[in-house]
Amino acid sequence: YLENMNDRETIYTHLNVFETFNPVLPDAYKETDFTFLANIGPELQHNVIRQVKSKFIAMDTMNYWISGTLPALKQTISKVDAMIINDSEVKQLAETDNLFTGARKIQAMGPKTLIIKKGEHGSILVHNDNYFFCPAYPVENLYDPTGAGDTFAGGFMGYLAQVGSVNNTVLRQAVMVATAFASFCVEAFGVQRLKQISAADIKSRVQNLLEYIEINPQLLWEIE
Amino acid sequence: YLENMNDRETIYTHLNVFETFNPVLPDAYKETDFTFLANIGPELQHNVIRQVKSKFIAMDTMNYWISGTLPALKQTISKVDAMIINDSEVKQLAETDNLFTGARKIQAMGPKTLIIKKGEHGSILVHNDNYFFCPAYPVENLYDPTGAGDTFAGGFMGYLAQVGSVNNTVLRQAVMVATAFASFCVEAFGVQRLKQISAADIKSRVQNLLEYIEINPQLLWEIE
Repeated sequence: YLENMNDRETIYTHLNVFETFNPVLPDAYKETDFTFLANIGPELQHNVIRQVKSKFIAMDTMNYWISGTLPALKQTISKVDAMIINDSEVKQLAETDNLFTGARKIQAMGPKTLIIKKGEHGSILVHNDNYFFCPAYPVENLYDPTGAGDTFAGGFMGYLAQVGSVNNTVLRQAVMVATAFASFCVEAFGVQRLKQISAADIKSRVQNLLEYIEINPQLLWEIE
Repeated sequence: YLENMNDRETIYTHLNVFETFNPVLPDAYKETDFTFLANIGPELQHNVIRQVKSKFIAMDTMNYWISGTLPALKQTISKVDAMIINDSEVKQLAETDNLFTGARKIQAMGPKTLIIKKGEHGSILVHNDNYFFCPAYPVENLYDPTGAGDTFAGGFMGYLAQVGSVNNTVLRQAVMVATAFASFCVEAFGVQRLKQISAADIKSRVQNLLEYIEINPQLLWEIE
């Protein structure tokens, strides 16, 4: 991560054991309703998709796969319901500087739901043709953003799995819960901070986030 | 503006006539309830403050004054109710990398209300100890961001002046109206796009913005 804690540079990527890993899921895992494919090779992700009978599959990816294995990646993308990715990855994958143009181009590849993470600038849920903008939680003691994306995805998928259904209302709430989870991750190294918190802490930040976007929709001045 | 249309570099600043300008307001202007001091030398802004009997004064400033005339700038800041400034200016003025820490440091200089503009990442209203996060309007045909900040400020102050009072509810609505105004500014060069639009166009974008942050506050899963 660079000094602003929002941009990063990849120094090197060693796949190590993942280079030839071919996962075989236990039968019990195949029945899971909600599957998240964390960032890894798209063919490995595709192998998992073939084995599960899920009603909602989401995936992550990264610049390494976009520039290195694009045809396989597009094949995998065409099989999922949602992508949870960074703004820079949207631009690279869709070959555009405009996030909203990019979102539509990725939707055309398959997934109708995108959750675009913008670090300290929050996230954008694109679901079919509607948007939801969620701020990042205001954190003054930012320590290390590593793992925030995976924590976000975990909170997001966990909320969907608990509710058991997917629609615009649930997706918006899931983004907010995910944001609360991620905000704790960045306050310490690794999972240190996440190990300290309770459900009440998550609830409290979700409640704050709700207040941060609360607005009276009745304008007091009727613009003429 | 750089290629991402969100960061800018100042090549040079020539003050020209503003170097020695000392405004004398007509009597009718002195009675205005809402005054906005656009970006210019802090002593000139201060001269205007001395002449008006306003109930709400907001000001803008820029890196040029923060690095060049800081003592005079701080004197002016201490006299206003609100600042409408960019995120980079908050960090420079408060000498911190954290926007929220910076906001509190600027509040300690005087103004209890800050509207922090983050370009494509929207804006943050800090009013006393509460936050409101407003997304930027999603624009796919971004042409030139020049003037967006002044358009934003105009929409913001105009809404306050029409309503005639300032509180948390009105300030949040004003930020949203301001965002709608600014979104038209960036779609063409200068004021070209603003000259084409009607009140209905502003209303329509405000309505969309309301939908972009709408959320059901009743979580469907009670986190245990």
